[in-house]
Amino acid sequence: MISVIIIGFGNVGQHLYRVFDDASGVSVLQIASRSPISGVDHTPTTTDLKQLKEADLYIIAAPDDAIEGISEQLTFTNRLVVHTSGSVAMEMLSDENRKGVFYPLQTFSKDREVDFKEVPICYEADYEDDLALLKNLGSQISEKVVLVSSEKRAKLHLAAVFANNFTNHLYHLSETYLTKHGIDFELMQPLIKETAMKVQSLSPSEAQTGPAIRKDKKTIAKHLQLMRDREYRRIYKSLTKSISKSHGKKL
Amino acid sequence: MISVIIIGFGNVGQHLYRVFDDASGVSVLQIASRSPISGVDHTPTTTDLKQLKEADLYIIAAPDDAIEGISEQLTFTNRLVVHTSGSVAMEMLSDENRKGVFYPLQTFSKDREVDFKEVPICYEADYEDDLALLKNLGSQISEKVVLVSSEKRAKLHLAAVFANNFTNHLYHLSETYLTKHGIDFELMQPLIKETAMKVQSLSPSEAQTGPAIRKDKKTIAKHLQLMRDREYRRIYKSLTKSISKSHGKKL
Repeated sequence: MISVIIIGFGNVGQHLYRVFDDASGVSVLQIASRSPISGVDHTPTTTDLKQLKEADLYIIAAPDDAIEGISEQLTFTNRLVVHTSGSVAMEMLSDENRKGVFYPLQTFSKDREVDFKEVPICYEADYEDDLALLKNLGSQISEKVVLVSSEKRAKLHLAAVFANNFTNHLYHLSETYLTKHGIDFELMQPLIKETAMKVQSLSPSEAQTGPAIRKDKKTIAKHLQLMRDREYRRIYKSLTKSISKSHGKKL
Repeated sequence: MISVIIIGFGNVGQHLYRVFDDASGVSVLQIASRSPISGVDHTPTTTDLKQLKEADLYIIAAPDDAIEGISEQLTFTNRLVVHTSGSVAMEMLSDENRKGVFYPLQTFSKDREVDFKEVPICYEADYEDDLALLKNLGSQISEKVVLVSSEKRAKLHLAAVFANNFTNHLYHLSETYLTKHGIDFELMQPLIKETAMKVQSLSPSEAQTGPAIRKDKKTIAKHLQLMRDREYRRIYKSLTKSISKSHGKKL
């Protein structure tokens, strides 16, 4: 049984709490949060970092810029303290304790259940025993547990910005454009789903379709005529150029 | 029973054939294609447009720039002839026959089954009877059948370029970057899936996360340091700027 204390109870903290609470080999001893927590009945909570119990592992699930400060406020020493961030280096944690990272590579929202079995857990630590513990903990909730250095994790996080944040923004541009022209965004949802499902088995470069890769200047010209907004035209041109460049075709 | 002849047997033609063949109220009388078709045993095929039988409906499932030419080569008159393109206006079809559009808004690949029930079918025609027939045909295969004018369809198609072609290109950039740094793209697949699933119920503007919307200059600067390639930097900056603009925050 691995005993865990979760520090921070935002999206990531709450999702981790739920999945650990369901896992047979994990016991969440306590949750610490800046503001009082409600709705967690069978786990002790605290708002005071000085009141933390003793546990195998302390998980700081806090915003990037709060991680270092929280790790420095801990009053004990030589215990295993990890954070859950994609972009913060392990070294940023206080030297008073043993350092590690437990990064679930997924986007978490308040109201959506996440199937952790599919979520890659990227872990890192300085010592063999700590690596083994984090790997064991990861395996309790996910089928994909991988050792990833801080350097590689930063690159993963950048790639995730392209695949998640930027992608979602394209959905947003698509929605805004349709709404402006009185068309229901719902019509776009099955296409969005299938686009993502395709690359679960196919490489994105094989899955690429559309006027840019076809070198279809006529359709591209038509599309540019349909957009008055400079922002849309700028992004359309920029990505069209990048597609034709990536696929070795000049437009 | 609606009798249909499919002209063109690429991705869209083949998927339509399969789903019509399974539908109880549709009979595919014949398939016409430029090159001989194999693997279709119980439906007559031809490579000669002069040999087309009589049917309720002729569906031209051909590349955009071939549609007009094919419609002009048809040797009969006053029958219902539709195309399946998102971006070609209905008016491009020959005046010799009654015009229409039957546009399934989805991305089709050779080796992937598509669940047509979820695919929006956008139809259009000049006459009441033709509209009723296309609506009926659409309802045989899909739960979402919508009357869409050529003008609106062109806009839908543009929005689909953002939500599908451009999105897939971001997956591609993400994959290329990871591969270059020896990291497996598989790690990104669950995130890609969840990003798409989120906007099936949530608006993309509510689902937006990441450094750009958080106004997190530190992470943005870190990311820019991790990209040497000018193309990546250009797209990163362009989309970051667009996110903060869309969400009313200046970076």
